Amino acid sequence: MIFPNPMLDIWRLAFGWLCRKLRRESSFCNPLRMIMNMSSSSFDVCAIGNALVDVIANASDEFLRDNKIAKGGMTLVDAEQAATLYDRIGPAVEMSGGSAANTVAGIASLGGNTAFMGKVKADQLGAIFRHDLHAQNVLFATPPVPERRHDVHPTTVDHRRGAPTGRCIILVTPDAQRSMSTYLGAAVEFGADDVQPEVVRAAQVTYLEGYLFDPPEAKNAFRHAAQIVRESGRKLALTLSDTFCVQRHRDEFLDLIRSDVDILFANQSELLALYETDDLNAAITAARAACEVCVTTRSEKGAIVATAQQLVEVPAAPVANVVDTTGAGDLFAAGFLFGYTHGKDLAESGRIGAIAAAEIISHFGPRSQVKLSDLIRQM
Amino acid sequence: MIFPNPMLDIWRLAFGWLCRKLRRESSFCNPLRMIMNMSSSSFDVCAIGNALVDVIANASDEFLRDNKIAKGGMTLVDAEQAATLYDRIGPAVEMSGGSAANTVAGIASLGGNTAFMGKVKADQLGAIFRHDLHAQNVLFATPPVPERRHDVHPTTVDHRRGAPTGRCIILVTPDAQRSMSTYLGAAVEFGADDVQPEVVRAAQVTYLEGYLFDPPEAKNAFRHAAQIVRESGRKLALTLSDTFCVQRHRDEFLDLIRSDVDILFANQSELLALYETDDLNAAITAARAACEVCVTTRSEKGAIVATAQQLVEVPAAPVANVVDTTGAGDLFAAGFLFGYTHGKDLAESGRIGAIAAAEIISHFGPRSQVKLSDLIRQM
Repeated sequence: MIFPNPMLDIWRLAFGWLCRKLRRESSFCNPLRMIMNMSSSSFDVCAIGNALVDVIANASDEFLRDNKIAKGGMTLVDAEQAATLYDRIGPAVEMSGGSAANTVAGIASLGGNTAFMGKVKADQLGAIFRHDLHAQNVLFATPPVPERRHDVHPTTVDHRRGAPTGRCIILVTPDAQRSMSTYLGAAVEFGADDVQPEVVRAAQVTYLEGYLFDPPEAKNAFRHAAQIVRESGRKLALTLSDTFCVQRHRDEFLDLIRSDVDILFANQSELLALYETDDLNAAITAARAACEVCVTTRSEKGAIVATAQQLVEVPAAPVANVVDTTGAGDLFAAGFLFGYTHGKDLAESGRIGAIAAAEIISHFGPRSQVKLSDLIRQM
Repeated sequence: MIFPNPMLDIWRLAFGWLCRKLRRESSFCNPLRMIMNMSSSSFDVCAIGNALVDVIANASDEFLRDNKIAKGGMTLVDAEQAATLYDRIGPAVEMSGGSAANTVAGIASLGGNTAFMGKVKADQLGAIFRHDLHAQNVLFATPPVPERRHDVHPTTVDHRRGAPTGRCIILVTPDAQRSMSTYLGAAVEFGADDVQPEVVRAAQVTYLEGYLFDPPEAKNAFRHAAQIVRESGRKLALTLSDTFCVQRHRDEFLDLIRSDVDILFANQSELLALYETDDLNAAITAARAACEVCVTTRSEKGAIVATAQQLVEVPAAPVANVVDTTGAGDLFAAGFLFGYTHGKDLAESGRIGAIAAAEIISHFGPRSQVKLSDLIRQM
């Protein structure tokens, strides 16, 4: 037999999906790109996260105060709140986002082989999200939530089609800080059934975002994926995502980190919130005892990469002009994981992370505007 | 009577439209903003154009060659060609666009009072286009093409809902040149009935884009608007839009310029194409004989503003780093028309145009990233 079982599964899955796509929505994806993706024998990283399109606008600090938006944080909002906020913000730019999706897009831009799982609706924003991952050669085969057409009641307007593709309204203040209001939309429909075991088994590292603990179904998917990783002897990486997210799910995060997580990503505040301390050394000590690698980012102070044996300080890469900090953590994780899955040591992996993060904060939006592999070569 | 007749008409129109909106799609627009817009007693500029969302991506010159895209031009594509091209391009950013819409958004950012008419579909991209104009306090009350729901045939997938909101795939090469492939989509459904006569009568200048000559119905709307302008003694402005567009519609443009146009905007190649000459002086001489003001932009060489009596050379404003030339002409027109409608002389109007154009080419996309009125104050 030429292919081992997991790869046969991937082909079966891809073929079925392609056939459905070709029959129904020929423009919704690029089949050739899909096949090219599938022909890789394994993935460096596969990620599961909330599939979101970012809506990015400038805003003042007063605007954040008036609209009760926690500066620098991520607040969940419902459809109505999202619509009200959207009506109030200035002109915006739309761009694919989602924390874990940004990370795999970054790894792909560095030349890595990646896959993503997450839920969009079969709508225009969903098509944009899908396009932008396929355009980076990221495998993204999670079927979208279809439009409900047969059960439409003519008088219900708002809910006639179910939730649309999720979006994150990102307001960037003049200090380049980003404050996010997320309407999860179709992302909440991602469940354990959407986890492709053959993809998880074929990936060196499976990367999960802490935000996945917000939608209840995704939490089950998260645990299911963690179990597959454990059973197949692969690595599990987790990012804590956000301080408020840590506060919402602290006990579950602690359990998961102790039992399943190999590589933990957090920024300083998230790690302190996790261990309910204001002593960073104590928090890092606790984290390195619980998992193999703990990566703590500290904005302009760089990052600390800690294992049981080693503690490496990574300096931040220089940035001429910080425009928008959206995606800084996501891209640091991208650079680090690219290095890690390509046999680089901790310091070098951290250095790649720092360069990727520096590129992303030098412009609007969380996806790189240059080919990161070229940038790394130049540095 | 407090309000003259045209304003009563605007209120009647706005009220009816608001009632319909509030009943059907409460989140599709911001009624408060609409009312604020309506309370102005007149408009500096009202524009009619193709309502498009831009899909902007980096591309190489080879990519343009391989995909037969005319560098620096605007090519019309059908739905299928647009989908095929979208599948091939790299990760993209979405942003409201449309030549005339960019111009009124720019005038609004300078502090002017503007209105726009153009056709979107009641879909997600249409909502984005509408939001971005409302967020700039531009009156945009053209009803979208509604979703066709009752006449859906279950086996026709692609055409089940009619054309979606139009989009323009803009590929930016490393030299910052933009090459556009436009799928007009719902924009072709803009017709003479969509012209709001009371808005045209209330505007000092009605600005029409040459691209409107491409969809047949819009051409009728164009002529209808020109007639209202003539009858009400207002000014008509036209931008020639694109060299290929001039070639497609030269005779009709010449007729219109002779009979109706007061202010003509063109870049050097468009003006030369119009008068089928390679002598810029001859072309400008012909244009200033045909209309009141002729504004010719010449990229880094600045612009020439010519009337029967005067010829003013406007230097280009300095730009540290030209990133993307998309919208340069649209924003020059915005600055010029803002000055013109605010009693500035030709040189000062040109200077405002040059500053607005310089801002727009210093970043991705055709909408300003700063408040242009602040920028003008600083300069």
